[in-house]
Amino acid sequence: MDAMLTTAPVDPEKVTEDVENLSLSPFGPARSSITEHPLSDEEVRKMTDYFHASLYMCLAMIYLKKNPLLRDPLTVDHLKRRLLGHWGSDPGQSFTYIHMNRLIKKYDLDAIFISGPGHGAPAVLSNSFLEGVYSEVYPDMSEDEEGLRRFFKSFSFPGGIGSHATPETPGSLHEGGELGYSISHAFGAVFDHPDLIALTMVGDGEAETGPLATSWHSTKFLNPITDGAVLPVLHLNGYKACWINNPTVLSRISHKELEALFIGYGWTPYFVEGSDVPTMHQAMAATMERCITKIREYQKEARDSGKSFRPRWPMIVLRTPKGWTGPKKVDGHHLEGYWRSHQVPLTNVLKDKAQLKLLEDWMREYHPEKHFDESGKLIPELRELAPTGNRRMSANPVANGGLVRRKLHVPDFRNYGVEVTRGGVSKLGSMANFAVFLRDVIKENPKDFRVFGPDETESNKLSKIYEAGQKVWLGEYFEEDKDGGNLTHAGRVMEMLSEHTCEGWLEGYVLSGRHGLLNSYEPFIHIIDSMVNQHCKWLEKCLEVEWRQKIASLNILLTATVWRQDHNGFTHQDPGFLDVVANKSPEIVRIYLPPDANCLLSTMDHCLRSSNYVNVIVADKQDHLQFLTMDQAIAHCTKGLGIWEWASNDKGEEPDVVMASCGDTSTHESLAATALLRTHLPQLKIRFVNVVDLFKLIDESEHPHGLSAHEFKAIFTDDKPCIFNFHSYPWLIHRLTYGRKGQHNLHVRGYNEKGNIDTPLELAIRNGTDRYSLAIDAIDRVSGLGNKGAAARDTLLNEQIAAKNYAFHEGIDPKMTEDWVWPF
Amino acid sequence: MDAMLTTAPVDPEKVTEDVENLSLSPFGPARSSITEHPLSDEEVRKMTDYFHASLYMCLAMIYLKKNPLLRDPLTVDHLKRRLLGHWGSDPGQSFTYIHMNRLIKKYDLDAIFISGPGHGAPAVLSNSFLEGVYSEVYPDMSEDEEGLRRFFKSFSFPGGIGSHATPETPGSLHEGGELGYSISHAFGAVFDHPDLIALTMVGDGEAETGPLATSWHSTKFLNPITDGAVLPVLHLNGYKACWINNPTVLSRISHKELEALFIGYGWTPYFVEGSDVPTMHQAMAATMERCITKIREYQKEARDSGKSFRPRWPMIVLRTPKGWTGPKKVDGHHLEGYWRSHQVPLTNVLKDKAQLKLLEDWMREYHPEKHFDESGKLIPELRELAPTGNRRMSANPVANGGLVRRKLHVPDFRNYGVEVTRGGVSKLGSMANFAVFLRDVIKENPKDFRVFGPDETESNKLSKIYEAGQKVWLGEYFEEDKDGGNLTHAGRVMEMLSEHTCEGWLEGYVLSGRHGLLNSYEPFIHIIDSMVNQHCKWLEKCLEVEWRQKIASLNILLTATVWRQDHNGFTHQDPGFLDVVANKSPEIVRIYLPPDANCLLSTMDHCLRSSNYVNVIVADKQDHLQFLTMDQAIAHCTKGLGIWEWASNDKGEEPDVVMASCGDTSTHESLAATALLRTHLPQLKIRFVNVVDLFKLIDESEHPHGLSAHEFKAIFTDDKPCIFNFHSYPWLIHRLTYGRKGQHNLHVRGYNEKGNIDTPLELAIRNGTDRYSLAIDAIDRVSGLGNKGAAARDTLLNEQIAAKNYAFHEGIDPKMTEDWVWPF
Repeated sequence: MDAMLTTAPVDPEKVTEDVENLSLSPFGPARSSITEHPLSDEEVRKMTDYFHASLYMCLAMIYLKKNPLLRDPLTVDHLKRRLLGHWGSDPGQSFTYIHMNRLIKKYDLDAIFISGPGHGAPAVLSNSFLEGVYSEVYPDMSEDEEGLRRFFKSFSFPGGIGSHATPETPGSLHEGGELGYSISHAFGAVFDHPDLIALTMVGDGEAETGPLATSWHSTKFLNPITDGAVLPVLHLNGYKACWINNPTVLSRISHKELEALFIGYGWTPYFVEGSDVPTMHQAMAATMERCITKIREYQKEARDSGKSFRPRWPMIVLRTPKGWTGPKKVDGHHLEGYWRSHQVPLTNVLKDKAQLKLLEDWMREYHPEKHFDESGKLIPELRELAPTGNRRMSANPVANGGLVRRKLHVPDFRNYGVEVTRGGVSKLGSMANFAVFLRDVIKENPKDFRVFGPDETESNKLSKIYEAGQKVWLGEYFEEDKDGGNLTHAGRVMEMLSEHTCEGWLEGYVLSGRHGLLNSYEPFIHIIDSMVNQHCKWLEKCLEVEWRQKIASLNILLTATVWRQDHNGFTHQDPGFLDVVANKSPEIVRIYLPPDANCLLSTMDHCLRSSNYVNVIVADKQDHLQFLTMDQAIAHCTKGLGIWEWASNDKGEEPDVVMASCGDTSTHESLAATALLRTHLPQLKIRFVNVVDLFKLIDESEHPHGLSAHEFKAIFTDDKPCIFNFHSYPWLIHRLTYGRKGQHNLHVRGYNEKGNIDTPLELAIRNGTDRYSLAIDAIDRVSGLGNKGAAARDTLLNEQIAAKNYAFHEGIDPKMTEDWVWPF
Repeated sequence: MDAMLTTAPVDPEKVTEDVENLSLSPFGPARSSITEHPLSDEEVRKMTDYFHASLYMCLAMIYLKKNPLLRDPLTVDHLKRRLLGHWGSDPGQSFTYIHMNRLIKKYDLDAIFISGPGHGAPAVLSNSFLEGVYSEVYPDMSEDEEGLRRFFKSFSFPGGIGSHATPETPGSLHEGGELGYSISHAFGAVFDHPDLIALTMVGDGEAETGPLATSWHSTKFLNPITDGAVLPVLHLNGYKACWINNPTVLSRISHKELEALFIGYGWTPYFVEGSDVPTMHQAMAATMERCITKIREYQKEARDSGKSFRPRWPMIVLRTPKGWTGPKKVDGHHLEGYWRSHQVPLTNVLKDKAQLKLLEDWMREYHPEKHFDESGKLIPELRELAPTGNRRMSANPVANGGLVRRKLHVPDFRNYGVEVTRGGVSKLGSMANFAVFLRDVIKENPKDFRVFGPDETESNKLSKIYEAGQKVWLGEYFEEDKDGGNLTHAGRVMEMLSEHTCEGWLEGYVLSGRHGLLNSYEPFIHIIDSMVNQHCKWLEKCLEVEWRQKIASLNILLTATVWRQDHNGFTHQDPGFLDVVANKSPEIVRIYLPPDANCLLSTMDHCLRSSNYVNVIVADKQDHLQFLTMDQAIAHCTKGLGIWEWASNDKGEEPDVVMASCGDTSTHESLAATALLRTHLPQLKIRFVNVVDLFKLIDESEHPHGLSAHEFKAIFTDDKPCIFNFHSYPWLIHRLTYGRKGQHNLHVRGYNEKGNIDTPLELAIRNGTDRYSLAIDAIDRVSGLGNKGAAARDTLLNEQIAAKNYAFHEGIDPKMTEDWVWPF
């Protein structure tokens, strides 16, 4: 086995069956790449006892509400009335946890445990309990019989402890409810934490997901000098999720393919396979120690020499039977090592006395009476196998990131403002201007701020930031990279063409106490809808967990927006991420659409300093008209929305119509519509309103940013028509203003699902969001304009047709963002 | 090189740098795994000419609006005023296309071309034009000088031809706007098409995405007897997307790692690398022929023996310089083989005369005057290199799936109905019942219907379908698989723990003319938000493309819904996919929430028979009360919503309150609330309304299913309070009914973002969607109930508290879905 694993030649034309006849069975004595036996018999015995104590607890969590240490014969009355929880991956995870404990003690390691497999919480929870952390964090779950009882009963019980590594779980920064992100979270956590090792269990179900499959490539972005290390343990547990009797892909391919796959991903796979507990202890101890040693060697080599490189980092492939150490068969069906042991392994214990007996026998095989003392506490001999203090993985402060979070140093954004002498006249790229500020944020925080993005930093006009930190790249270098490549071994910008990986890295980075920003094309941010959802849920839950310290907000900057997808067409048009975010808890989410450069600066300053939010900021990357001076911008962004007096002519009176906008391109067109109206219908009293902070629109009872009814009325009026030009799908504005007294007067224009290869003007006209349509809409909504209104309407319609014809023939717009300036 | 690629030993402990010193440069004479030279000099010359004709066209598409064959000296006046388009990946893609042409002719292959890399349309379009298809499909783009001019001008021009392989592109079933799905689409297209080969270019940018990274494992789900083959060409083009100067991960790892990676994924990689055109022709011709031969050998072996197996299928790694054959350097900067050649390669031609001259010289190097005749048509000598008729890849009817689509045989769903003698009394699992119908759909359509899902078929109570078709599995088998594994080499159910891959397979399957269904947990369907978005956009665009025949609808069945996530908790609670879908074009999307088994049957029958939609069906998998007989269900689903007379007591008069519901759990609670009201306040006139077809709520002007104002009023009234219990986030109902006269009387209850480990009752109470809250809400909204109302309110509140206490202590609900029946 060992020989095969290390020396088999790779013949690309041979099919699997011919070259690989090794058993893929998880059963039997240990087979492993490293065959040393580092443990004494005594150590094996103790580790087995500790392992059994943990497994006993896993079963007790699933089944018991009374009689926690089986001091009485087990009866139905001791069982929960509804059995919930998962057994399948617990043994492998606990086994791994315990072996890491040994090495933490031996080498004084700084380590965290990331539990990737679904529903593996019992393994993590039992270990946290055994090492004393759980009772320290939750004193009512004390280290005695009554504490154990409460602990067991609470598990998977309403209002109690979840079956994933939820925010309530000490030492967890990765919940794992939705699968696929354990490796990217782990890398995020070890970036800029040079001493940290993230021991990361990866489920073989999880490993089939796309996000996980590409995240193995994260090694090309990890610097062995400045970053820590990830030690993945791919757990070939064999079968997938609840009631799902499917084998996993990676457990049913040959060793050769599996080994090749991980070498291809840039790792050195070490195999540990089998079910015989004593030999498995030896194999795992030897293998894990080799991996830790290798990690430290690579780090030392790089750090001593000052030359970073990309080692083929070690990882472990652990193949054990699903539900390892459980009964082999029940009622004639396979249990251990088969999908039937995934969830509650014995399902009929409430009704079937024989099964109840089987459960009792099985639980007693783990000998709770030997491992817990009279009071119910783990015996000292076993307790000393665990590390102490913050070296315990479930007590590592990194996993409660707010504890180690340093305040971000943010330079005074007012020094980066653009000069605006008059609104709507000068033009420049808000994003490129922001990039200078962002560059200096990077400079001021060289060890705990990074920018992440799917290869779009340059495209998004943020390349100025490379002056403070280039792109991390541990792949091979070519000569021509010096010609503008901006690549480096130790940089601040993380780019990979995987939104999933970038988002996962950023999440791991902020969850472990640092700060960052994701920048992405708006059209493709839906790719990570579900990841952002899960992060929002994590944050919301953390608000209820007293000991969780606040972490930096997750900042998502969206650009390359829907209105400027000229040649990319329909596939690049989707502003609906805001709808997904708006469904999340108002305590967590914030959405900003700054209309110009100074507003963008003010908004970003606020977002970067904030904590525990998901901030979504939408701003286009092209050149745009500038509207507000820095002072005006600060005032405007602080209020979140407001009347632009300089663009209005209602002179503080009740207007005839309100022209409102939210979003930069939308504001430009709305303002141009206002100019057209003021030119052609000077008697019309127009109020111009701009919204930066989207949640201002909602009622104060539903979101902390929401306006009161009184405030809302003061801006939008109760009864005047408001032509609202919105960046995204128009429904969102209706939703947010639902129940407002004036809501029926809000006529919202936004993106509708009709795309083409369009110029910006054509796209706007198609959606009714261009200046002409908006102005005509206003005329149509205001009564009493008579002939003058009709004449103005005709003029505008003709101008629109002429503009459209020009675009159609020339392929470019006559004057949209290009030449137009505010004429008043 | 060749030797290294086939025989290098794999030493897992060596780092990359030590074992691999081969150049990763794309330049130089061809290096390849197969070193034969199958082409004559004459063949090489002709293929080069054809290649040059195609490349000339690619450049012309980007630059020219006049002077299409450069018969006049090139001036600025001939250029488009805005230059858009992408050059970078065109040469490699066109090269590959041309080599497949040779083999199609030689072996009479049935093949399609799938273009994965972003913005590679010019390669596909030029080849379609050269083989005559484009002009057949679009007669105004004729094969003459004027046709060429129109063709060139239209490209990336407003209203014209897109820069991806959009639906307007003949031979395309994969647009590629959002990256990551080329391989899963390709597999979907070849399932059950045993003779088809999907030649699939995979961009090395695209290859970094998660969905693509895991889709390589699709080989474990492909049967060499009944399915065709995918021949991937991983194009190591070196750099990523527009203005994005990043190297790709796969182009910057060693050959050893790259080779290992694909062996690990289950493929046999053949390398073709270099930039010297003549030797590259020999290398590509030999290699591609070897791959095709291998594919045919494996298929023959399996088909002759009747024994299917999983070969290590061939794939090609093609490394060529980005912008291959372009100028090496421009203005002192690298162009060919560097990121600067990705998009428009010479950007200053409109202003810089030297650049204009450079462009002209470059274009003339491709010798348009030699390859196109006087009239502008490709010369016969070159034309005969392409296949003819439907063998031309851009004419293959499979890529216009509607052409080959057979009508689905659907058994009479009425034969699968459940007996309902009285509404709200009997109880069973609607999903398990539907599974019998679905099983027979599979039976009746053994070659063109498949069920896809991320390992949840069993969990979703659909396991009955295994009787008609088990799960396809070409991985290794264990003895215990016979114990309920339901695995087979040739099945109808496709399960992999990757929503992305399942969705991609299904899309490819229906796009190539077949039928199918995706079943998935509701909480994790957000994972494929963006894929569904893109498919919607594809379908919508197809409506405008006359020659596109309608394809089967994409059916997405969501279960394991938000209201029954008892122990899974907060991470499993998100019904917001409906919001994402509702943003798409009303011509394309349909959303159904059948309340019971007979409605589910009627709905699914309709969805399975429909075409060109994305149908989303939400139905829980647990046991539920049954409400309607089959006849009632058919009538109800046909109308899409309606009054349930048997549950109402308004006797056709104006009611005091409308109790409305949408969704199965929601309907159950709404009905129970109605019963509580009728019990405690018998004088209250209640109308009970149920909604199956969500888009009925919207106005008829906005969706083809929408009700008129009159119809809406007849059901909901204009002025009576309506307590609307909705399955998803409540906002969606407000959005859909926006502008309805009675909208302010709609009091919508639904999921709000507040989760926990809850019993179903606790979750409902937390969200105000339980029977007690709904009934109390109704009492509060109806005026004039006086003391009787107050008394009933108190009673209900007490009942609610008692129920909540019970759940809190026992961990289960007193009676929710379990025991309750409709008492009237």
